[in-house]
Amino acid sequence: MRVLDRIEQVRKELEAARQQGREVGLVPTMGALHGGHAALIERSARHCDVTAVTVFVNPLQFGPAEDFARYPRDLAADVAAAEAAGADVVFAPPVEEMYPSGVATRVEVGRLGEVMEGAARPGHFSGVATVVAKLFAIAGPCRAYFGEKDYQQLLVVRRVAADLSFPVVVVGCPTVREADGLAMSSRNRYLSPGERLAATVLWRALAAAAASGEGDGDALRELMARFVSSEPDVALDYAEVADAATLEPLGTVEGEARLLIAARVGATRLIDNLPLGVAA
Amino acid sequence: MRVLDRIEQVRKELEAARQQGREVGLVPTMGALHGGHAALIERSARHCDVTAVTVFVNPLQFGPAEDFARYPRDLAADVAAAEAAGADVVFAPPVEEMYPSGVATRVEVGRLGEVMEGAARPGHFSGVATVVAKLFAIAGPCRAYFGEKDYQQLLVVRRVAADLSFPVVVVGCPTVREADGLAMSSRNRYLSPGERLAATVLWRALAAAAASGEGDGDALRELMARFVSSEPDVALDYAEVADAATLEPLGTVEGEARLLIAARVGATRLIDNLPLGVAA
Repeated sequence: MRVLDRIEQVRKELEAARQQGREVGLVPTMGALHGGHAALIERSARHCDVTAVTVFVNPLQFGPAEDFARYPRDLAADVAAAEAAGADVVFAPPVEEMYPSGVATRVEVGRLGEVMEGAARPGHFSGVATVVAKLFAIAGPCRAYFGEKDYQQLLVVRRVAADLSFPVVVVGCPTVREADGLAMSSRNRYLSPGERLAATVLWRALAAAAASGEGDGDALRELMARFVSSEPDVALDYAEVADAATLEPLGTVEGEARLLIAARVGATRLIDNLPLGVAA
Repeated sequence: MRVLDRIEQVRKELEAARQQGREVGLVPTMGALHGGHAALIERSARHCDVTAVTVFVNPLQFGPAEDFARYPRDLAADVAAAEAAGADVVFAPPVEEMYPSGVATRVEVGRLGEVMEGAARPGHFSGVATVVAKLFAIAGPCRAYFGEKDYQQLLVVRRVAADLSFPVVVVGCPTVREADGLAMSSRNRYLSPGERLAATVLWRALAAAAASGEGDGDALRELMARFVSSEPDVALDYAEVADAATLEPLGTVEGEARLLIAARVGATRLIDNLPLGVAA
Protein backbone atom coordinates (compact mmCIF):
# COMPACT_ATOMS: atom_id res chain seq x y z
CA MET A 1 0.00 0.00 0.00
CA ARG A 2 1.19 3.52 -0.85
CA VAL A 3 0.92 6.46 1.56
CA LEU A 4 0.97 9.79 -0.29
CA ASP A 5 0.83 13.35 0.95
CA ARG A 6 0.95 15.40 -2.27
CA ILE A 7 -2.05 16.18 -4.46
CA GLU A 8 -0.17 15.61 -7.69
CA GLN A 9 1.07 12.20 -6.49
CA VAL A 10 -2.38 10.84 -5.78
CA ARG A 11 -3.82 12.41 -8.92
CA LYS A 12 -1.15 10.68 -11.05
CA GLU A 13 -1.54 7.38 -9.22
CA LEU A 14 -5.30 7.24 -9.83
CA GLU A 15 -4.97 8.59 -13.38
CA ALA A 16 -2.49 5.82 -14.18
CA ALA A 17 -4.83 3.20 -12.72
CA ARG A 18 -7.69 4.38 -14.93
CA GLN A 19 -5.38 4.43 -17.96
CA GLN A 20 -4.92 0.70 -17.33
CA GLY A 21 -8.70 0.24 -17.27
CA ARG A 22 -8.92 -0.12 -13.49
CA GLU A 23 -11.88 1.32 -11.62
CA VAL A 24 -11.09 3.70 -8.76
CA GLY A 25 -12.86 3.77 -5.38
CA LEU A 26 -12.50 6.74 -3.07
CA VAL A 27 -13.17 6.74 0.69
CA PRO A 28 -12.85 10.27 2.11
CA THR A 29 -12.30 10.26 5.89
CA MET A 30 -10.96 12.46 8.67
CA GLY A 31 -8.95 9.51 9.98
CA ALA A 32 -9.56 8.01 13.44
CA LEU A 33 -10.74 5.01 11.46
CA HIS A 34 -13.22 2.65 13.07
CA GLY A 35 -15.41 -0.23 11.96
CA GLY A 36 -17.68 2.10 9.99
CA HIS A 37 -14.78 3.30 7.87
CA ALA A 38 -13.53 -0.26 7.49
CA ALA A 39 -16.91 -1.24 6.05
CA LEU A 40 -16.66 1.58 3.48
CA ILE A 41 -13.13 0.55 2.50
CA GLU A 42 -14.08 -3.13 2.27
CA ARG A 43 -17.07 -2.29 0.10
CA SER A 44 -14.89 -0.19 -2.21
CA ALA A 45 -12.23 -2.90 -2.35
CA ARG A 46 -14.84 -5.50 -3.33
CA HIS A 47 -16.22 -3.42 -6.19
CA CYS A 48 -13.26 -1.37 -7.40
CA ASP A 49 -9.77 -2.26 -8.59
CA VAL A 50 -8.00 0.48 -6.68
CA THR A 51 -9.21 1.95 -3.39
CA ALA A 52 -7.86 5.28 -2.16
CA VAL A 53 -8.60 6.35 1.41
CA THR A 54 -8.12 10.02 2.18
CA VAL A 55 -7.20 10.99 5.74
CA PHE A 56 -7.59 14.72 6.27
CA VAL A 57 -8.96 16.54 9.30
CA ASN A 58 -10.54 19.36 7.33
CA PRO A 59 -10.38 22.63 9.28
CA LEU A 60 -13.11 24.19 7.10
CA GLN A 61 -15.83 21.98 8.53
CA PHE A 62 -15.16 22.77 12.19
CA GLY A 63 -16.67 25.77 13.98
CA PRO A 64 -14.41 27.98 16.13
CA ALA A 65 -15.70 26.38 19.37
CA GLU A 66 -15.51 22.82 18.03
CA ASP A 67 -12.99 20.03 18.43
CA PHE A 68 -10.64 20.60 15.49
CA ALA A 69 -7.52 20.86 17.67
CA ARG A 70 -8.27 17.77 19.75
CA TYR A 71 -9.84 15.66 16.98
CA PRO A 72 -8.00 12.31 17.20
CA ARG A 73 -5.04 12.03 14.81
CA ASP A 74 -2.99 8.83 14.51
CA LEU A 75 -1.80 8.31 10.96
CA ALA A 76 0.10 5.09 11.69
CA ALA A 77 -3.03 3.47 13.13
CA ASP A 78 -5.14 4.78 10.24
CA VAL A 79 -2.70 3.44 7.65
CA ALA A 80 -2.76 0.02 9.32
CA ALA A 81 -6.57 0.00 9.51
CA ALA A 82 -6.93 1.14 5.89
CA GLU A 83 -4.53 -1.54 4.68
CA ALA A 84 -6.26 -4.24 6.72
CA ALA A 85 -9.58 -3.27 5.13
CA GLY A 86 -8.17 -3.50 1.61
CA ALA A 87 -7.02 0.02 0.69
CA ASP A 88 -4.33 0.42 -1.97
CA VAL A 89 -3.53 4.08 -1.39
CA VAL A 90 -3.78 6.38 1.62
CA PHE A 91 -3.74 10.09 0.80
CA ALA A 92 -2.93 12.04 3.94
CA PRO A 93 -2.04 15.62 2.99
CA PRO A 94 -1.01 18.30 5.48
CA VAL A 95 -3.31 21.33 5.72
CA GLU A 96 -0.80 23.46 3.77
CA GLU A 97 -1.03 21.05 0.82
CA MET A 98 -4.81 21.29 0.67
CA TYR A 99 -5.11 25.01 1.44
CA PRO A 100 -1.75 26.59 0.58
CA SER A 101 -2.99 30.16 0.20
CA GLY A 102 -5.94 30.28 2.53
CA VAL A 103 -9.42 29.43 1.41
CA ALA A 104 -11.03 31.90 -0.94
CA THR A 105 -13.23 29.45 -2.86
CA ARG A 106 -16.13 27.87 -1.01
CA VAL A 107 -18.78 25.47 -2.25
CA GLU A 108 -22.23 26.21 -0.81
CA VAL A 109 -25.26 23.94 -1.04
CA GLY A 110 -28.08 26.23 0.05
CA ARG A 111 -31.00 25.07 2.18
CA LEU A 112 -29.88 21.42 2.42
CA GLY A 113 -26.80 22.61 4.30
CA GLU A 114 -28.67 25.02 6.57
CA VAL A 115 -31.11 22.75 8.44
CA MET A 116 -30.37 20.37 11.34
CA GLU A 117 -26.57 19.89 11.48
CA GLY A 118 -26.18 23.02 9.37
CA ALA A 119 -28.24 25.03 11.86
CA ALA A 120 -26.30 23.58 14.82
CA ARG A 121 -22.94 23.98 13.08
CA PRO A 122 -22.95 27.12 10.89
CA GLY A 123 -20.55 26.76 7.96
CA HIS A 124 -20.08 23.03 8.54
CA PHE A 125 -21.55 21.84 5.24
CA SER A 126 -19.86 24.58 3.30
CA GLY A 127 -16.62 23.14 4.67
CA VAL A 128 -17.67 19.60 3.81
CA ALA A 129 -18.84 20.53 0.30
CA THR A 130 -15.65 22.45 -0.38
CA VAL A 131 -13.25 19.72 0.65
CA VAL A 132 -15.29 16.99 -1.06
CA ALA A 133 -15.40 18.99 -4.31
CA LYS A 134 -11.63 19.37 -4.07
CA LEU A 135 -11.12 15.66 -3.38
CA PHE A 136 -13.39 14.79 -6.33
CA ALA A 137 -11.42 17.15 -8.59
CA ILE A 138 -8.18 15.50 -7.43
CA ALA A 139 -9.39 11.90 -7.67
CA GLY A 140 -11.08 12.13 -11.07
CA PRO A 141 -13.68 9.58 -12.26
CA CYS A 142 -14.44 7.17 -9.41
CA ARG A 143 -16.98 5.66 -7.03
CA ALA A 144 -16.97 7.48 -3.67
CA TYR A 145 -18.15 5.81 -0.49
CA PHE A 146 -19.85 7.67 2.36
CA GLY A 147 -21.59 6.33 5.45
CA GLU A 148 -25.28 6.87 6.17
CA LYS A 149 -24.37 7.70 9.77
CA ASP A 150 -23.72 11.23 8.53
CA TYR A 151 -26.93 11.19 6.56
CA GLN A 152 -27.20 14.91 5.86
CA GLN A 153 -23.58 14.91 4.74
CA LEU A 154 -24.36 12.09 2.32
CA LEU A 155 -27.19 14.15 0.81
CA VAL A 156 -24.96 17.21 0.58
CA VAL A 157 -22.22 15.23 -1.16
CA ARG A 158 -24.69 13.71 -3.62
CA ARG A 159 -26.00 17.16 -4.40
CA VAL A 160 -22.54 18.64 -4.98
CA ALA A 161 -21.56 15.74 -7.24
CA ALA A 162 -24.76 16.06 -9.28
CA ASP A 163 -24.94 19.86 -9.45
CA LEU A 164 -21.29 20.29 -10.45
CA SER A 165 -21.33 17.20 -12.72
CA PHE A 166 -18.39 15.48 -11.12
CA PRO A 167 -17.74 12.08 -12.76
CA VAL A 168 -18.29 10.41 -9.41
CA VAL A 169 -20.84 7.80 -8.36
CA VAL A 170 -21.66 8.51 -4.71
CA VAL A 171 -22.37 5.26 -2.84
CA GLY A 172 -24.15 5.51 0.52
CA CYS A 173 -23.38 2.68 2.95
CA PRO A 174 -25.37 1.52 6.01
CA THR A 175 -24.36 2.72 9.46
CA VAL A 176 -22.18 0.27 11.38
CA ARG A 177 -23.19 -0.10 15.03
CA GLU A 178 -21.68 -1.43 18.22
CA ALA A 179 -23.39 -4.51 19.68
CA ASP A 180 -25.62 -2.32 21.83
CA GLY A 181 -26.74 -0.18 18.90
CA LEU A 182 -24.48 2.87 19.28
CA ALA A 183 -23.48 4.13 15.84
CA MET A 184 -19.74 3.90 15.35
CA SER A 185 -18.13 7.36 15.37
CA SER A 186 -14.64 8.70 15.87
CA ARG A 187 -16.08 10.95 18.58
CA ASN A 188 -17.23 7.96 20.67
CA ARG A 189 -13.71 7.79 22.05
CA TYR A 190 -14.34 11.09 23.85
CA LEU A 191 -17.00 9.39 26.02
CA SER A 192 -16.42 8.37 29.64
CA PRO A 193 -17.63 4.84 30.54
CA GLY A 194 -20.84 6.27 31.99
CA GLU A 195 -21.42 8.50 28.96
CA ARG A 196 -20.73 5.56 26.68
CA LEU A 197 -23.64 3.68 28.30
CA ALA A 198 -25.96 6.70 28.21
CA ALA A 199 -25.10 7.35 24.55
CA THR A 200 -27.07 4.31 23.43
CA VAL A 201 -30.22 6.36 24.06
CA LEU A 202 -29.87 7.89 20.60
CA TRP A 203 -30.21 4.46 19.04
CA ARG A 204 -32.94 3.40 21.46
CA ALA A 205 -34.98 6.52 20.68
CA LEU A 206 -34.62 6.02 16.91
CA ALA A 207 -35.40 2.31 17.04
CA ALA A 208 -38.47 2.85 19.24
CA ALA A 209 -39.77 5.59 16.94
CA ALA A 210 -39.16 3.48 13.82
CA ALA A 211 -40.95 0.51 15.40
CA SER A 212 -43.87 2.53 16.79
CA GLY A 213 -45.96 2.57 13.65
CA GLU A 214 -46.75 6.21 14.46
CA GLY A 215 -47.39 8.40 11.41
CA ASP A 216 -47.69 11.81 13.03
CA GLY A 217 -44.50 13.88 12.89
CA ASP A 218 -44.89 15.63 16.23
CA ALA A 219 -45.80 12.38 18.01
CA LEU A 220 -42.61 10.80 16.66
CA ARG A 221 -40.52 13.80 17.73
CA GLU A 222 -42.03 13.67 21.22
CA LEU A 223 -41.48 9.95 21.49
CA MET A 224 -37.78 10.35 20.72
CA ALA A 225 -37.42 13.37 23.00
CA ARG A 226 -39.00 11.44 25.91
CA PHE A 227 -36.42 8.67 25.51
CA VAL A 228 -33.56 11.13 25.55
CA SER A 229 -34.91 13.03 28.57
CA SER A 230 -34.72 9.77 30.55
CA GLU A 231 -30.91 10.06 30.44
CA PRO A 232 -29.76 12.90 32.70
CA ASP A 233 -26.31 13.18 31.05
CA VAL A 234 -27.77 13.54 27.54
CA ALA A 235 -29.08 16.88 26.27
CA LEU A 236 -31.20 16.68 23.13
CA ASP A 237 -30.34 19.04 20.30
CA TYR A 238 -33.00 17.86 17.85
CA ALA A 239 -35.14 14.80 17.14
CA GLU A 240 -36.57 15.20 13.67
CA VAL A 241 -38.77 13.38 11.15
CA ALA A 242 -37.95 14.63 7.69
CA ASP A 243 -38.29 13.92 4.01
CA ALA A 244 -35.44 11.55 3.19
CA ALA A 245 -34.38 13.53 0.11
CA THR A 246 -34.89 17.17 1.09
CA LEU A 247 -34.70 16.94 4.92
CA GLU A 248 -37.75 19.20 5.17
CA PRO A 249 -39.67 18.34 8.40
CA LEU A 250 -42.77 16.21 7.92
CA GLY A 251 -46.14 16.87 9.54
CA THR A 252 -47.28 13.37 8.71
CA VAL A 253 -45.07 10.60 7.43
CA GLU A 254 -45.40 9.93 3.71
CA GLY A 255 -43.01 8.71 1.06
CA GLU A 256 -39.41 8.15 2.01
CA ALA A 257 -38.84 9.54 5.48
CA ARG A 258 -35.90 9.65 7.85
CA LEU A 259 -35.60 9.95 11.61
CA LEU A 260 -32.64 12.08 12.65
CA ILE A 261 -31.35 12.84 16.11
CA ALA A 262 -28.56 14.90 17.64
CA ALA A 263 -27.66 15.20 21.30
CA ARG A 264 -24.84 16.22 23.57
CA VAL A 265 -23.60 13.38 25.77
CA GLY A 266 -21.55 15.14 28.41
CA ALA A 267 -19.35 17.42 26.31
CA THR A 268 -19.57 15.24 23.19
CA ARG A 269 -22.05 15.93 20.41
CA LEU A 270 -23.32 12.76 18.69
CA ILE A 271 -25.73 12.20 15.80
CA ASP A 272 -27.61 9.21 14.43
CA ASN A 273 -30.47 8.47 12.04
CA LEU A 274 -32.67 5.69 10.72
CA PRO A 275 -34.98 5.23 7.77
CA LEU A 276 -38.56 5.28 8.97
CA GLY A 277 -40.42 1.97 8.95
CA VAL A 278 -37.25 -0.10 8.80
CA ALA A 279 -36.24 -1.82 12.03
CA ALA A 280 -32.50 -2.40 11.76
CA MET B 1 -16.58 18.93 -36.17
CA ARG B 2 -19.05 17.49 -33.65
CA VAL B 3 -21.83 19.53 -32.06
CA LEU B 4 -22.98 17.99 -28.76
CA ASP B 5 -25.67 19.03 -26.32
CA ARG B 6 -25.42 16.36 -23.58
CA ILE B 7 -22.94 16.43 -20.69
CA GLU B 8 -22.19 12.71 -20.93
CA GLN B 9 -21.48 12.97 -24.67
CA VAL B 10 -18.84 15.64 -24.32
CA ARG B 11 -17.37 13.98 -21.22
CA LYS B 12 -16.93 10.71 -23.13
CA GLU B 13 -15.59 12.45 -26.23
CA LEU B 14 -12.86 14.24 -24.27
CA GLU B 15 -12.14 11.21 -22.09
CA ALA B 16 -11.63 9.09 -25.21
CA ALA B 17 -9.29 11.70 -26.67
CA ARG B 18 -7.15 11.69 -23.54
CA GLN B 19 -7.13 7.88 -23.53
CA GLN B 20 -5.45 8.15 -26.94
CA GLY B 21 -2.85 10.49 -25.47
CA ARG B 22 -4.35 13.62 -27.02
CA GLU B 23 -4.28 16.89 -25.10
CA VAL B 24 -7.62 18.65 -24.63
CA GLY B 25 -8.19 22.41 -24.95
CA LEU B 26 -11.37 23.99 -23.57
CA VAL B 27 -12.77 27.37 -24.59
CA PRO B 28 -15.80 28.26 -22.46
CA THR B 29 -17.99 30.92 -24.09
CA MET B 30 -21.51 32.29 -24.00
CA GLY B 31 -21.61 32.15 -27.79
CA ALA B 32 -22.01 35.29 -29.94
CA LEU B 33 -18.49 34.48 -31.01
CA HIS B 34 -16.29 37.31 -32.26
CA GLY B 35 -12.61 37.81 -33.07
CA GLY B 36 -11.67 37.57 -29.41
CA HIS B 37 -13.16 34.11 -29.10
CA ALA B 38 -11.59 33.11 -32.42
CA ALA B 39 -8.18 34.02 -31.01
CA LEU B 40 -8.81 31.78 -27.98
CA ILE B 41 -9.90 28.88 -30.17
CA GLU B 42 -6.97 29.33 -32.54
CA ARG B 43 -4.55 29.39 -29.63
CA SER B 44 -6.07 26.21 -28.20
CA ALA B 45 -6.01 24.53 -31.61
CA ARG B 46 -2.33 25.38 -32.04
CA HIS B 47 -1.31 23.91 -28.69
CA CYS B 48 -3.84 21.12 -28.08
CA ASP B 49 -4.89 18.07 -30.08
CA VAL B 50 -8.62 18.47 -29.45
CA THR B 51 -10.35 21.80 -28.88
CA ALA B 52 -13.81 21.91 -27.34
CA VAL B 53 -15.74 25.18 -27.42
CA THR B 54 -18.65 25.45 -25.01
CA VAL B 55 -21.56 27.70 -25.97
CA PHE B 56 -23.84 28.31 -22.99
CA VAL B 57 -25.57 31.52 -21.97
CA ASN B 58 -25.33 30.88 -18.24
CA PRO B 59 -28.38 32.27 -16.43
CA LEU B 60 -26.55 32.17 -13.06
CA GLN B 61 -24.21 34.97 -14.00
CA PHE B 62 -26.89 37.49 -15.03
CA GLY B 63 -28.63 39.77 -12.57
CA PRO B 64 -32.44 40.08 -12.70
CA ALA B 65 -32.24 43.46 -14.48
CA GLU B 66 -29.55 42.34 -16.93
CA ASP B 67 -29.62 41.19 -20.54
CA PHE B 68 -29.99 37.40 -20.17
CA ALA B 69 -33.16 37.26 -22.29
CA ARG B 70 -31.82 39.41 -25.12
CA TYR B 71 -28.23 38.18 -25.01
CA PRO B 72 -27.42 37.29 -28.66
CA ARG B 73 -27.95 33.60 -29.48
CA ASP B 74 -27.14 32.17 -32.92
CA LEU B 75 -25.82 28.63 -32.62
CA ALA B 76 -25.41 28.11 -36.38
CA ALA B 77 -23.19 31.18 -36.63
CA ASP B 78 -21.25 30.13 -33.52
CA VAL B 79 -20.69 26.62 -34.86
CA ALA B 80 -19.40 28.04 -38.14
CA ALA B 81 -17.10 30.48 -36.34
CA ALA B 82 -15.79 27.80 -33.98
CA GLU B 83 -15.07 25.43 -36.85
CA ALA B 84 -13.35 28.15 -38.87
CA ALA B 85 -11.08 28.88 -35.90
CA GLY B 86 -10.12 25.22 -35.50
CA ALA B 87 -12.52 23.75 -32.95
CA ASP B 88 -13.15 19.99 -32.99
CA VAL B 89 -16.17 19.92 -30.68
CA VAL B 90 -18.88 22.42 -29.83
CA PHE B 91 -20.75 21.71 -26.60
CA ALA B 92 -24.01 23.68 -26.59
CA PRO B 93 -26.25 22.33 -23.83
CA PRO B 94 -29.74 23.64 -23.11
CA VAL B 95 -30.26 25.18 -19.67
CA GLU B 96 -32.17 22.06 -18.50
CA GLU B 97 -29.13 19.91 -19.25
CA MET B 98 -26.84 22.08 -17.14
CA TYR B 99 -29.29 22.83 -14.31
CA PRO B 100 -31.93 20.07 -14.37
CA SER B 101 -33.14 20.49 -10.79
CA GLY B 102 -32.50 24.13 -10.12
CA VAL B 103 -29.26 25.35 -8.66
CA ALA B 104 -28.58 24.38 -5.06
CA THR B 105 -24.79 24.24 -5.25
CA ARG B 106 -22.91 27.48 -5.76
CA VAL B 107 -19.21 28.15 -5.92
CA GLU B 108 -18.21 31.39 -4.17
CA VAL B 109 -14.83 33.09 -4.40
CA GLY B 110 -14.96 35.62 -1.57
CA ARG B 111 -13.49 39.10 -1.84
CA LEU B 112 -12.09 38.68 -5.36
CA GLY B 113 -15.66 38.27 -6.58
CA GLU B 114 -17.06 41.19 -4.60
CA VAL B 115 -15.06 44.17 -5.85
CA MET B 116 -15.50 46.06 -9.14
CA GLU B 117 -17.64 43.89 -11.45
CA GLY B 118 -18.77 41.92 -8.41
CA ALA B 119 -19.92 45.12 -6.69
CA ALA B 120 -21.70 46.31 -9.85
CA ARG B 121 -23.20 42.90 -10.56
CA PRO B 122 -24.03 41.09 -7.27
CA GLY B 123 -23.88 37.32 -7.70
CA HIS B 124 -22.19 37.56 -11.09
CA PHE B 125 -18.93 35.87 -10.13
CA SER B 126 -20.70 33.23 -8.09
CA GLY B 127 -22.53 32.37 -11.32
CA VAL B 128 -19.29 32.39 -13.30
CA ALA B 129 -17.42 30.31 -10.72
CA THR B 130 -20.24 27.78 -10.51
CA VAL B 131 -20.58 27.20 -14.24
CA VAL B 132 -16.81 27.12 -14.78
CA ALA B 133 -16.37 24.57 -11.98
CA LYS B 134 -19.07 22.47 -13.60
CA LEU B 135 -17.49 22.77 -17.05
CA PHE B 136 -14.10 21.83 -15.58
CA ALA B 137 -15.65 18.79 -13.86
CA ILE B 138 -17.25 17.77 -17.16
CA ALA B 139 -14.20 18.38 -19.35
CA GLY B 140 -11.61 16.69 -17.12
CA PRO B 141 -7.87 17.35 -17.44
CA CYS B 142 -7.33 20.11 -20.01
CA ARG B 143 -5.98 23.56 -20.81
CA ALA B 144 -8.72 26.19 -20.57
CA TYR B 145 -8.52 29.47 -22.47
CA PHE B 146 -9.97 32.73 -21.17
CA GLY B 147 -9.57 36.28 -22.49
CA GLU B 148 -7.94 39.06 -20.51
CA LYS B 149 -10.77 41.37 -21.59
CA ASP B 150 -12.72 39.95 -18.65
CA TYR B 151 -9.73 40.33 -16.41
CA GLN B 152 -11.48 39.89 -13.08
CA GLN B 153 -13.21 36.79 -14.44
CA LEU B 154 -9.81 35.39 -15.44
CA LEU B 155 -8.55 35.88 -11.88
CA VAL B 156 -11.71 34.28 -10.46
CA VAL B 157 -11.37 31.28 -12.76
CA ARG B 158 -7.69 30.84 -11.87
CA ARG B 159 -8.59 30.97 -8.20
CA VAL B 160 -11.37 28.38 -8.51
CA ALA B 161 -9.12 26.04 -10.49
CA ALA B 162 -6.31 26.35 -7.93
CA ASP B 163 -8.42 26.27 -4.76
CA LEU B 164 -10.46 23.25 -5.84
CA SER B 165 -7.44 21.51 -7.47
CA PHE B 166 -9.04 21.03 -10.85
CA PRO B 167 -6.58 19.37 -13.28
CA VAL B 168 -6.88 22.41 -15.54
CA VAL B 169 -4.21 24.81 -16.74
CA VAL B 170 -5.91 28.20 -17.08
CA VAL B 171 -4.41 30.16 -19.98
CA GLY B 172 -5.08 33.91 -20.12
CA CYS B 173 -5.01 35.41 -23.62
CA PRO B 174 -4.55 39.07 -24.65
CA THR B 175 -7.59 41.18 -25.44
CA VAL B 176 -8.39 41.43 -29.13
CA ARG B 177 -9.30 44.94 -30.25
CA GLU B 178 -10.98 46.59 -33.19
CA ALA B 179 -8.77 48.83 -35.34
CA ASP B 180 -9.76 51.88 -33.25
CA GLY B 181 -8.91 50.18 -29.96
CA LEU B 182 -12.39 49.08 -28.79
CA ALA B 183 -12.10 45.71 -27.04
CA MET B 184 -14.08 43.05 -28.90
CA SER B 185 -17.19 42.05 -26.94
CA SER B 186 -20.44 40.31 -27.77
CA ARG B 187 -22.22 43.32 -26.26
CA ASN B 188 -20.68 45.72 -28.81
CA ARG B 189 -23.46 44.68 -31.17
CA TYR B 190 -25.96 46.45 -28.91
CA LEU B 191 -24.31 49.80 -29.74
CA SER B 192 -25.81 52.34 -32.13
CA PRO B 193 -23.35 53.84 -34.64
CA GLY B 194 -22.94 56.92 -32.46
CA GLU B 195 -22.44 54.84 -29.32
CA ARG B 196 -19.96 52.67 -31.16
CA LEU B 197 -17.80 55.74 -31.80
CA ALA B 198 -18.15 57.01 -28.24
CA ALA B 199 -17.28 53.56 -26.82
CA THR B 200 -13.64 53.93 -27.87
CA VAL B 201 -13.24 56.30 -24.93
CA LEU B 202 -12.68 53.29 -22.63
CA TRP B 203 -9.63 52.33 -24.63
CA ARG B 204 -8.47 55.92 -25.02
CA ALA B 205 -8.72 56.48 -21.26
CA LEU B 206 -6.80 53.28 -20.46
CA ALA B 207 -4.12 53.92 -23.06
CA ALA B 208 -3.60 57.50 -21.91
CA ALA B 209 -3.34 56.42 -18.28
CA ALA B 210 -0.92 53.63 -19.13
CA ALA B 211 1.24 56.00 -21.18
CA SER B 212 1.16 58.84 -18.63
CA GLY B 213 3.98 57.60 -16.45
CA GLU B 214 1.86 58.67 -13.47
CA GLY B 215 2.43 56.62 -10.33
CA ASP B 216 -0.27 58.02 -8.06
CA GLY B 217 -3.46 55.96 -7.93
CA ASP B 218 -5.90 58.85 -7.56
CA ALA B 219 -4.22 60.83 -10.33
CA LEU B 220 -4.60 57.86 -12.66
CA ARG B 221 -8.25 57.39 -11.68
CA GLU B 222 -8.94 61.09 -12.32
CA LEU B 223 -7.12 61.03 -15.64
CA MET B 224 -9.31 58.15 -16.85
CA ALA B 225 -12.49 59.71 -15.46
CA ARG B 226 -11.74 63.00 -17.25
CA PHE B 227 -11.47 61.17 -20.58
CA VAL B 228 -14.79 59.42 -20.05
CA SER B 229 -16.57 62.61 -18.95
CA SER B 230 -15.67 64.14 -22.33
CA GLU B 231 -18.16 61.73 -23.96
CA PRO B 232 -21.72 62.82 -23.11
CA ASP B 233 -23.25 59.41 -23.97
CA VAL B 234 -20.84 57.50 -21.71
CA ALA B 235 -21.43 57.21 -17.94
CA LEU B 236 -18.44 56.02 -15.94
CA ASP B 237 -19.05 53.19 -13.45
CA TYR B 238 -15.49 52.89 -12.21
CA ALA B 239 -11.95 53.66 -13.32
CA GLU B 240 -9.59 51.77 -11.06
CA VAL B 241 -5.90 51.12 -10.51
CA ALA B 242 -5.47 47.86 -8.68
CA ASP B 243 -3.03 45.16 -7.74
CA ALA B 244 -2.97 42.80 -10.73
CA ALA B 245 -3.36 39.68 -8.58
CA THR B 246 -5.73 40.72 -5.78
CA LEU B 247 -7.58 43.64 -7.44
CA GLU B 248 -7.15 45.66 -4.25
CA PRO B 249 -7.02 49.42 -5.14
CA LEU B 250 -3.55 50.93 -5.14
CA GLY B 251 -2.60 54.26 -3.54
CA THR B 252 0.65 54.32 -5.45
CA VAL B 253 1.57 52.01 -8.27
CA GLU B 254 4.00 49.26 -7.30
CA GLY B 255 4.52 45.71 -8.49
CA GLU B 256 2.15 44.30 -11.06
CA ALA B 257 -0.75 46.71 -11.48
CA ARG B 258 -3.81 46.79 -13.70
CA LEU B 259 -6.00 49.62 -14.97
CA LEU B 260 -9.66 48.61 -15.11
CA ILE B 261 -12.61 50.58 -16.39
CA ALA B 262 -16.36 50.07 -16.67
CA ALA B 263 -18.88 52.43 -18.20
CA ARG B 264 -22.36 52.54 -19.59
CA VAL B 265 -22.50 53.57 -23.24
CA GLY B 266 -26.14 54.40 -23.80
CA ALA B 267 -27.87 51.33 -22.30
CA THR B 268 -24.88 49.02 -22.79
CA ARG B 269 -22.38 48.33 -20.04
CA LEU B 270 -18.83 47.78 -21.30
CA ILE B 271 -15.58 46.94 -19.52
CA ASP B 272 -11.93 47.03 -20.49
CA ASN B 273 -8.52 46.87 -18.81
CA LEU B 274 -4.82 47.20 -19.46
CA PRO B 275 -1.64 46.25 -17.62
CA LEU B 276 -0.02 49.38 -16.26
CA GLY B 277 3.16 50.56 -17.92
CA VAL B 278 2.57 48.55 -21.08
CA ALA B 279 1.43 50.54 -24.09
CA ALA B 280 -0.41 48.08 -26.32
